[in-house]
Amino acid sequence: MIDYQNVINTIHNDLKDEVARGVVASYIPELADIDANNFGIHLRLMTGETFATGDWNKKLSIQSISKVLTLAMVLPMYPENLWQRVDVEPSGNPFNHLSLLELENGIPRNPLINAGALVIADILVSLLDNPKEDFLNYVRSVVDDPTINFNEAVANSERLTGYNNYAAANLLKAYGNLKNDVDDVLDFYFHQCAIEMTCEQLTKAFFMFANHGNCCQQNKLISESQAKRINAIMLTCGFYDEAGEFAFEVGLPGKSGVGGGIVALLPNHFTISVWSPGLNPQGNSMLGMKALEQFTSMTKLSIF
Amino acid sequence: MIDYQNVINTIHNDLKDEVARGVVASYIPELADIDANNFGIHLRLMTGETFATGDWNKKLSIQSISKVLTLAMVLPMYPENLWQRVDVEPSGNPFNHLSLLELENGIPRNPLINAGALVIADILVSLLDNPKEDFLNYVRSVVDDPTINFNEAVANSERLTGYNNYAAANLLKAYGNLKNDVDDVLDFYFHQCAIEMTCEQLTKAFFMFANHGNCCQQNKLISESQAKRINAIMLTCGFYDEAGEFAFEVGLPGKSGVGGGIVALLPNHFTISVWSPGLNPQGNSMLGMKALEQFTSMTKLSIF
Amino acid sequence: MIDYQNVINTIHNDLKDEVARGVVASYIPELADIDANNFGIHLRLMTGETFATGDWNKKLSIQSISKVLTLAMVLPMYPENLWQRVDVEPSGNPFNHLSLLELENGIPRNPLINAGALVIADILVSLLDNPKEDFLNYVRSVVDDPTINFNEAVANSERLTGYNNYAAANLLKAYGNLKNDVDDVLDFYFHQCAIEMTCEQLTKAFFMFANHGNCCQQNKLISESQAKRINAIMLTCGFYDEAGEFAFEVGLPGKSGVGGGIVALLPNHFTISVWSPGLNPQGNSMLGMKALEQFTSMTKLSIF
Amino acid sequence: MIDYQNVINTIHNDLKDEVARGVVASYIPELADIDANNFGIHLRLMTGETFATGDWNKKLSIQSISKVLTLAMVLPMYPENLWQRVDVEPSGNPFNHLSLLELENGIPRNPLINAGALVIADILVSLLDNPKEDFLNYVRSVVDDPTINFNEAVANSERLTGYNNYAAANLLKAYGNLKNDVDDVLDFYFHQCAIEMTCEQLTKAFFMFANHGNCCQQNKLISESQAKRINAIMLTCGFYDEAGEFAFEVGLPGKSGVGGGIVALLPNHFTISVWSPGLNPQGNSMLGMKALEQFTSMTKLSIF
Repeated sequence: MIDYQNVINTIHNDLKDEVARGVVASYIPELADIDANNFGIHLRLMTGETFATGDWNKKLSIQSISKVLTLAMVLPMYPENLWQRVDVEPSGNPFNHLSLLELENGIPRNPLINAGALVIADILVSLLDNPKEDFLNYVRSVVDDPTINFNEAVANSERLTGYNNYAAANLLKAYGNLKNDVDDVLDFYFHQCAIEMTCEQLTKAFFMFANHGNCCQQNKLISESQAKRINAIMLTCGFYDEAGEFAFEVGLPGKSGVGGGIVALLPNHFTISVWSPGLNPQGNSMLGMKALEQFTSMTKLSIF
Repeated sequence: MIDYQNVINTIHNDLKDEVARGVVASYIPELADIDANNFGIHLRLMTGETFATGDWNKKLSIQSISKVLTLAMVLPMYPENLWQRVDVEPSGNPFNHLSLLELENGIPRNPLINAGALVIADILVSLLDNPKEDFLNYVRSVVDDPTINFNEAVANSERLTGYNNYAAANLLKAYGNLKNDVDDVLDFYFHQCAIEMTCEQLTKAFFMFANHGNCCQQNKLISESQAKRINAIMLTCGFYDEAGEFAFEVGLPGKSGVGGGIVALLPNHFTISVWSPGLNPQGNSMLGMKALEQFTSMTKLSIF
Repeated sequence: MIDYQNVINTIHNDLKDEVARGVVASYIPELADIDANNFGIHLRLMTGETFATGDWNKKLSIQSISKVLTLAMVLPMYPENLWQRVDVEPSGNPFNHLSLLELENGIPRNPLINAGALVIADILVSLLDNPKEDFLNYVRSVVDDPTINFNEAVANSERLTGYNNYAAANLLKAYGNLKNDVDDVLDFYFHQCAIEMTCEQLTKAFFMFANHGNCCQQNKLISESQAKRINAIMLTCGFYDEAGEFAFEVGLPGKSGVGGGIVALLPNHFTISVWSPGLNPQGNSMLGMKALEQFTSMTKLSIF
Repeated sequence: MIDYQNVINTIHNDLKDEVARGVVASYIPELADIDANNFGIHLRLMTGETFATGDWNKKLSIQSISKVLTLAMVLPMYPENLWQRVDVEPSGNPFNHLSLLELENGIPRNPLINAGALVIADILVSLLDNPKEDFLNYVRSVVDDPTINFNEAVANSERLTGYNNYAAANLLKAYGNLKNDVDDVLDFYFHQCAIEMTCEQLTKAFFMFANHGNCCQQNKLISESQAKRINAIMLTCGFYDEAGEFAFEVGLPGKSGVGGGIVALLPNHFTISVWSPGLNPQGNSMLGMKALEQFTSMTKLSIF
């Protein structure tokens, strides 16, 4: 029987004073101002037990972690041709992400790179009456917490400086793979990324992927098969060009965000979230990666 | 002594009933509506003599031909670091033009591809008090014709559908190689492309490149060295991924536009323009390419 | 309790008369001559029970499946810098596999693409006294079957026509990432690919990856951690540019070969092999992919 | 009237003590041992006059300069489908030269990059009875000098270490764009590159390109049209990824070799060769580039 509290305490103690914490994202002031010393872990077992340490109860900007939630929202609503608009293959190199789009005629490699998430956002903008509000309400209901909200200042800063996302959205539009106005899609996208959650809320949000599609309140939000497929996409595509490394070193489906959060999960067993704002050169939380490596080494719990 | 009128008449007769005329650009209605049967040639010798045939006196949308004129305008004004913001190498493949930008950190390959022309446009927007008006006046003075104007409907259509250019401009902005607002630069760029000229005006506009930097009115607008360098850039980069083919088959510096115009020149000898709206798969006027091949074959006049 | 025999019989019946069987590899006569109607399945549980149907007892050319076995052989022998000579990231697009090598300075993306397997082969040629014999003996001992052998005619045909592999090996050599003679490395590589096994032997060969590193005879050949990491590499990289698709549709670590074989596994539960020589456009056995999709759908057994 | 002797003396004096001379090619000992202080210039006017300075009479390894001569030899012999096996477009980036081959299905961008020159070599191996001897005799007759020869030690060293060329040749073979044995083609290619000439012999060798296809002895070796086309290819493709820069700064068709030689020409006027073994980062003779820039600046003689 694993003493989970002891495991995460050990990891927290080992890493909390680490000097090499990576670099906090600085492209917008709202992220740059986050204290690099934040470090929290939250673990939620399928049994309902939870374990936490450090700054598990502070809000962080979920950023790209939101891409998994928009995918989960769209899957039950969308006709089968979703997978004609976005593929499920790892993207390999991010250094020429737009070139891949060009080489492959505007079909993004997968829904977890920016271009793919923009296509998913476009679909939601088409399907929802009030896209931003509806998605926010979806997240609130998944987590069972009506206090979750956008950080409007973050969304606005992204809108003012997100030139790479404007470039990607316009390129998708040029290929006919964006149906709505570029500005509408990006407004939705910048808001989905600007949602704030605590580590505790994140392990709730991803509970359905570990639990056959059922969220914490045991409502079936996605089918078992959809849950498995989202896990497969997370495993192969969830960590930019470090996806292979994460599978190799950690061995769990998961997703990182530029705010320093990572959520990962073992189907039927647990969800776990880690937050430390400093990023490694690949854009993933440096302590977060280490903490999860240590967690699967100590517990020997991985999908492999 | 070459009978130039006879030469261009022969070419015009040979080609004017050609069935395979390529495809008229259709991405905006203002270009799609042009009659594909238009076909004009205008030749201007350094001596001042001119020769013309066909639709040489109808207005066409100069489109990318304008990139040579913005380059000519900026060169005498701009400090030496221009060539740190844009290179002078052929771009090779257009099918992944944005990927090249990414691989090369936002430095466009040359000023005649769209990304490079956007950087030149950005510089002009910085340097000029009233960028659009000032550039239009520059073109009018180069050609000595105050009636030259923008086609505002064309500029507006480009603004509404030019997603690829929005993508390129935003990518340049993401790399810090665009100083002004994306929208301001694109507004300027869409207007420069929307200038209309006749074949006769085009041979006047390019006269300075064949005449050591002196325009028709014999004002020195650029130095002899700048004229030579612009010619070198036209020869190696003026025809998208058909630059090598044009050098190989025609052997003259020149520039084409998606409106079906081509201007070419032999230094110290002549400028020549051809217009036929149908484009070959590489985006260059199909009859225009053939007419110029025939012209240099018949006259044996080329830089090689 | 799952009736495995019934499951694989059902799959076999559903698919055995399928008309769309893909295309048998034809680049060498020895593969082209294989009867496209061959179709076998073999399943081996961790408990020792086995289930089989169809042509499970005929020999097939394992081809790229051998790459997992050379990796398993080298891992316990090799100093830590192995992962400086080959990475563990998915390669994405195979259509420009050599270009990736160039862009990344001769470091192959992972050990399961050809270039990566050539680096592993190079290491084995350096470490082993009699590389081909020693590797063959390793495979024989893993499977506990001394009759396993090379098909010399296949190896020889590959040697005569494997220009892509010669290109890759020479490019690796140019980057200094091949220590031995190109011809020696390729001779080893063509032999490892030319090993023949039955479906039954394949489920034995991969038993260690599902069984914490212990082979059928319960000898520990690799550590538990090494087994997990090889599984992670198989999942993210085992199916060329269909790795994401396989993870998405099947959800098991596995490896395919151009001979039409596929081996996959669920850690702690089973290994399974399928053989049908016809390949889909991505180079993976067409019926093999379908059979495994059906298997995980029916049994709901996958890592996700 | 230009005092050519004075011009080249001035250039030689200005540059001969230059400290920044680039780096001598060191990948084979025969090139690495060349004295970096060598510096020669030879100029040959169409009138027959010649001017020379420095080490114009020492032998240098012509290397890639030979590619223009194999092209000149093959053009009059070869049926029209030559241009289906190799294109005439600038290659842009050399850093991923094999990737371009892959993206474009084994059709090299132009005959002056290595892959393209290998295709030309393959054609000559097919057409000639004794390829190496016949090509050597061709060069001897073009220059009217029977003492020109291969440096067998250079050819042999290239054979032992030319992994990049082996990679390119095998990749061409894999695409079916090499008809003969890889080793036979490379043996021919390594020999063509290993020819040695003096600066004086080089201006003779390229005389036909400036003289309407007639060599020094006034024999018509290629047609006027073929001469023009070879000049066009040299201008757009003769200097690796510095072709645009050379056209921009110098403005003459030309070709460089890794032995430090450069030959350039102005049609109807002159051929000029420069030799200095130190190379700039793009692989072209550093002093050679500067000397030619200075030459066209001082004389104002360029094609533009």
